[in-house]
Amino acid sequence: MDLASLSLGQYTFVQNAFSFGLAVMAAATLFLWFSRSHVAPAYRMAVTISGLVTAIAAYHYLQIMLSWEAAFSVVGSSIEVTGSPFNQAYRYVDWLLTVPLLLIELILVMRLARDETISKSVWLGGAAALMIILGYPGEVAEASGTRFTFWVLSMIPFIYIVYQLVVGLKGSISNQPENVRGLINGAATLVVISWLFYPIVFLFPLIGFTGGAAITAVEVGYTIADIVAKAVFGILILAIAIRKSEAE
Amino acid sequence: MDLASLSLGQYTFVQNAFSFGLAVMAAATLFLWFSRSHVAPAYRMAVTISGLVTAIAAYHYLQIMLSWEAAFSVVGSSIEVTGSPFNQAYRYVDWLLTVPLLLIELILVMRLARDETISKSVWLGGAAALMIILGYPGEVAEASGTRFTFWVLSMIPFIYIVYQLVVGLKGSISNQPENVRGLINGAATLVVISWLFYPIVFLFPLIGFTGGAAITAVEVGYTIADIVAKAVFGILILAIAIRKSEAE
Amino acid sequence: MDLASLSLGQYTFVQNAFSFGLAVMAAATLFLWFSRSHVAPAYRMAVTISGLVTAIAAYHYLQIMLSWEAAFSVVGSSIEVTGSPFNQAYRYVDWLLTVPLLLIELILVMRLARDETISKSVWLGGAAALMIILGYPGEVAEASGTRFTFWVLSMIPFIYIVYQLVVGLKGSISNQPENVRGLINGAATLVVISWLFYPIVFLFPLIGFTGGAAITAVEVGYTIADIVAKAVFGILILAIAIRKSEAE
Amino acid sequence: MDLASLSLGQYTFVQNAFSFGLAVMAAATLFLWFSRSHVAPAYRMAVTISGLVTAIAAYHYLQIMLSWEAAFSVVGSSIEVTGSPFNQAYRYVDWLLTVPLLLIELILVMRLARDETISKSVWLGGAAALMIILGYPGEVAEASGTRFTFWVLSMIPFIYIVYQLVVGLKGSISNQPENVRGLINGAATLVVISWLFYPIVFLFPLIGFTGGAAITAVEVGYTIADIVAKAVFGILILAIAIRKSEAE
Amino acid sequence: MDLASLSLGQYTFVQNAFSFGLAVMAAATLFLWFSRSHVAPAYRMAVTISGLVTAIAAYHYLQIMLSWEAAFSVVGSSIEVTGSPFNQAYRYVDWLLTVPLLLIELILVMRLARDETISKSVWLGGAAALMIILGYPGEVAEASGTRFTFWVLSMIPFIYIVYQLVVGLKGSISNQPENVRGLINGAATLVVISWLFYPIVFLFPLIGFTGGAAITAVEVGYTIADIVAKAVFGILILAIAIRKSEAE
Ligand SMILES: CC1=C(/C=C/C(C)=C/C=C/C(C)=C/C=O)C(C)(C)CCC1
Ligand SMILES: CC1=C(/C=C/C(C)=C/C=C/C(C)=C/C=O)C(C)(C)CCC1
Ligand SMILES: CC1=C(/C=C/C(C)=C/C=C/C(C)=C/C=O)C(C)(C)CCC1
Ligand SMILES: CC1=C(/C=C/C(C)=C/C=C/C(C)=C/C=O)C(C)(C)CCC1
Ligand SMILES: CC1=C(/C=C/C(C)=C/C=C/C(C)=C/C=O)C(C)(C)CCC1
Ligand code: NA
Ligand code: NA
Ligand code: NA
Ligand code: NA
Ligand code: NA
Ligand code: NA
Ligand code: NA
Ligand code: NA
Ligand code: NA
Ligand code: NA
Repeated sequence: MDLASLSLGQYTFVQNAFSFGLAVMAAATLFLWFSRSHVAPAYRMAVTISGLVTAIAAYHYLQIMLSWEAAFSVVGSSIEVTGSPFNQAYRYVDWLLTVPLLLIELILVMRLARDETISKSVWLGGAAALMIILGYPGEVAEASGTRFTFWVLSMIPFIYIVYQLVVGLKGSISNQPENVRGLINGAATLVVISWLFYPIVFLFPLIGFTGGAAITAVEVGYTIADIVAKAVFGILILAIAIRKSEAE
Repeated sequence: MDLASLSLGQYTFVQNAFSFGLAVMAAATLFLWFSRSHVAPAYRMAVTISGLVTAIAAYHYLQIMLSWEAAFSVVGSSIEVTGSPFNQAYRYVDWLLTVPLLLIELILVMRLARDETISKSVWLGGAAALMIILGYPGEVAEASGTRFTFWVLSMIPFIYIVYQLVVGLKGSISNQPENVRGLINGAATLVVISWLFYPIVFLFPLIGFTGGAAITAVEVGYTIADIVAKAVFGILILAIAIRKSEAE
Repeated sequence: MDLASLSLGQYTFVQNAFSFGLAVMAAATLFLWFSRSHVAPAYRMAVTISGLVTAIAAYHYLQIMLSWEAAFSVVGSSIEVTGSPFNQAYRYVDWLLTVPLLLIELILVMRLARDETISKSVWLGGAAALMIILGYPGEVAEASGTRFTFWVLSMIPFIYIVYQLVVGLKGSISNQPENVRGLINGAATLVVISWLFYPIVFLFPLIGFTGGAAITAVEVGYTIADIVAKAVFGILILAIAIRKSEAE
Repeated sequence: MDLASLSLGQYTFVQNAFSFGLAVMAAATLFLWFSRSHVAPAYRMAVTISGLVTAIAAYHYLQIMLSWEAAFSVVGSSIEVTGSPFNQAYRYVDWLLTVPLLLIELILVMRLARDETISKSVWLGGAAALMIILGYPGEVAEASGTRFTFWVLSMIPFIYIVYQLVVGLKGSISNQPENVRGLINGAATLVVISWLFYPIVFLFPLIGFTGGAAITAVEVGYTIADIVAKAVFGILILAIAIRKSEAE
Repeated sequence: MDLASLSLGQYTFVQNAFSFGLAVMAAATLFLWFSRSHVAPAYRMAVTISGLVTAIAAYHYLQIMLSWEAAFSVVGSSIEVTGSPFNQAYRYVDWLLTVPLLLIELILVMRLARDETISKSVWLGGAAALMIILGYPGEVAEASGTRFTFWVLSMIPFIYIVYQLVVGLKGSISNQPENVRGLINGAATLVVISWLFYPIVFLFPLIGFTGGAAITAVEVGYTIADIVAKAVFGILILAIAIRKSEAE
């Protein structure tokens, strides 16, 4: 990642995207936690966890934003790198915490038997950790070949997870009250589409984007994906919980 | 925007306006959220969202204030620019988040059928995003011509939104309990007047204000508009919610 | 205001007074908001607003303290001014927000008819804004004559407000349950005495205090007045609310 | 107080003591306020105040810690003074706020008649303020003679307060439910012992401790005394309140 | 501890581990405290304390992270030490506070008679303090011999504590409702394994790790141990409390 290739405009755009991400995550957290009282006790834990995911993300967007601002200094109408590195690991550390939490939420939604719930959590959680740990060396690599190799490796657990989710969620739809089937279908679709976005964003530097444009596209792309996969998804989970509470 | 043309007095006045805006937004947030318990559960969501709007604004006024203070340094009885840019985008990012939230609140108040609620939210939300995105290049442009062009473009979605709101809110008045009709009328008027203020403030640099005076007028103008459209509006929504709760 | 005339002792004394003010305001805020649950719902709004007043003041004392510390740097056993100005406007911005809130509280206590409540709020709120806006140019003026002129101007709305409060509060005493009449009388007296303190403090630089002593006397004087008019007054309002709740 | 005589080890030890104090006070605050719901409404105010005392102390330990860190800079394996003074007044300002709050709590526990409660509060509160104000000039004095003189003066109100507390608390024991007599006796003993610790710590520089050792002993001594008199005492008050709630 | 021997990669890895620790502790705190409402009042205190332990740890990980970042500065692709020391004492101060709290939780779980509860708390708490105080001089020692000597000394109270816990917890299993016996057994195992991890991590610099690798292994090792012993353990305690609440 050649930070020195960024223009002032690109720098500012990414900075604004991070600040936007932070504001969205913090606002979603507050909204979700305030809405706990509108939800029957049985569904409250799911809403709490959704808010926890956005809270953790808000913390990491703050750190990402501070790291970004420390890496550059604006001089007149151009920017210079300060030597302080932009720490991309905050993103991966965030995922290491939030992806398992999201998977647990989805598995709980499937209403499986107790043993299956536990074994699924362990297998999917492990696969998610593997996916993220395999992705990181590619993200920070300078060489395109390395980036691609780790993408391929990371795709293996990724495909496994997505497959399990699609099968599991579709299969559980029939156990659900009728008034939420549409929403759960929507949530499943949202998960698949938003998750697919991550490996595509990762490929941007290999499919035409170079220099500052590549950095901008990657950072803004991940930020959009995070907003959909965490905040929008959390609101959907809340909507499902409210509907189910009314049904009772 | 020629920051170097500001006097110390203008700098301090704008700084105080930002601090005032921050204090008002934070105080309104706390007041709205504390008042949730005075409101029947059915109206609580609206009050929560009003407080979310002011909370998001409080965050952005903090960022705006910090960006403003970093852009200048006081030397004796005059000021110098530090080279660090004043980031106006925080304002537009704030609007991108809060204007859709305000529109959703207003649409909910209209009590439309479910399908209409969703389609209206999508159309008005989209128009609002367009309005703000078209306004930004004008705001940061140096040339008056560019500023004016984007003003004209941004006015198109703006007029559409205001027209929809006026028609929709007036039409919904008859569905409302009698004791709140006056307040809802007041809220509708407040929305229209405060929203109209934004494009007027935007024009200040084109209608006589120059240099430091233009910057001061724009920043203070937007701050006043924000206080009315967010904090005062939120209190009105709370008053409506309290009345409706009593009526039940 | 000649900051350079302050001694290290005076600087530290004022700094400690600001920190004390901040701690008192924050503690009062927490205490008032925690005590909401001891109060019947009808009186909760008054306690919430009392806490809001001290919360706003806590924010402004933080800003005042930071501005004070940035204006000086300690070198050995003496101090130097850094060139960064001490921003007295934070105090006036604070009053612009908190004085109307306090007046609203007092008017609500008077239990007037609805129309009178609204018209009194508008008139007294307007007079308070005028009083503070007229006082500010005097506060920051170098010349004694200017300071005195604006004092006289600001005294006009001040006398009007105090007169209205005394008459209104006394008149409302007979509508009150017997067990709180003493407390309400006490609150009315406290308001008048603490409010009278402000214009007297303002005059300190004109009645003998000079240089560092004048600055110290003014800043510490306002801090004491604020503690009485906001925190002590808030506790009295809470005591009245608790008594009234018990009476029901 | 000769800051330059501190060794790196002493500096770090005091810094760790302050950080420990801050963590204890903040944790005690949270614990006490969370425990409010375990206590009958009649005893909740006492628990709220206990938490307020530790909250105020947490704020002051933060300020003390920041002031301490600003006063020194570490260079290799030794330290240098930066010229920024270590502000001991934060401690005295803290006591000025928290000692009266603690006395009010103790007086409430005595369950006196209303008039006596008020007169005792005024007298003991006044004596406490006198004690602290008389102690401060001694604390910051360079000369041993001055330190001792103010110690003697401050001991007069101190002895009066301790005497009143011992007599009052012992006398009130018989009004208390049996299951809490032991705890109240314990609380009274804890108060007397922890309060006695303060004037002894104050004497450290006069009874053998010199240079860095004196500063270390005083700062660590006060920190331990504060933890016992505020946090441990608060937990005891909570225990008494829980027992009394169960008894009802 | 030779900070200068760290590579940039090791520095960043440890920094990320601290940030991860902070995020986990803060998220666990929020989750535990939100879950209080899912638990019967009798078990709420245990959940509150679990959250207090992670809250205290979050504060200390913040301090550890800030101390770490202040100790190094990144220059291009390598790092330099700044001279500001990395303060390992924050970790030991954290343990001094949190280990007794964890022991109290475990003793409460054992449901002993009142006298035994108190005597066990005193003995185990004292042994824990001794263990930590004896470990610290070894942690900061340069010489391997000193490190080992204090390890041996610290192991004595450690073995006593672990023995008491194993015996006590096993013995109390039969007093527990059947549906939680498995979980309590799990919690006991988790405690023993996670606690055993600490003295092993402490030995890393003596069993092959040198320079930057030793520092990295120790810091990351303790962080992992803390996450298991505090956050994972807290979640287990919550699970036990929820089950017991359902059983009632
Ligand atoms: C497949 C793949 C990746 C997948 C990342 C994903 C799927 C992240 C999901 C994050 C979520 C859902 C966060 C929400 O909290 C990486 C690591 C980019 C590396 C390249 C290959
Ligand atoms: C028409 C127009 C504008 C309109 C802005 C508006 C209408 C903003 C409303 C903001 C609100 C209501 C915020 C409250 O949360 C711009 C962008 C200034 C650009 C110039 C033309
Ligand atoms: C008459 C007068 C003044 C009055 C100030 C007052 C009355 C302030 C009250 C503030 C309160 C009550 C704050 C509490 O929240 C000024 C502005 C000093 C200027 C000189 C003349
Ligand atoms: C007698 C005496 C003193 C007493 C101080 C005391 C008794 C402080 C108590 C503080 C408490 C209880 C704080 C808890 O919130 C001083 C001022 C050191 C000065 C020397 C003589
Ligand atoms: C035996 C031993 C140690 C033990 C440390 C332990 C057992 C720490 C436990 C911490 C916990 C449980 C924290 C959770 O809040 C030390 C001090 C490393 C020093 C070397 C010998
Ligand atoms: Na920078
Ligand atoms: Na990245
Ligand atoms: Na500046
Ligand atoms: Na702007
Ligand atoms: Na300074
Ligand atoms: Na002033
Ligand atoms: Na320092
Ligand atoms: Na001291
Ligand atoms: Na650094
Ligand atoms: Na360590």
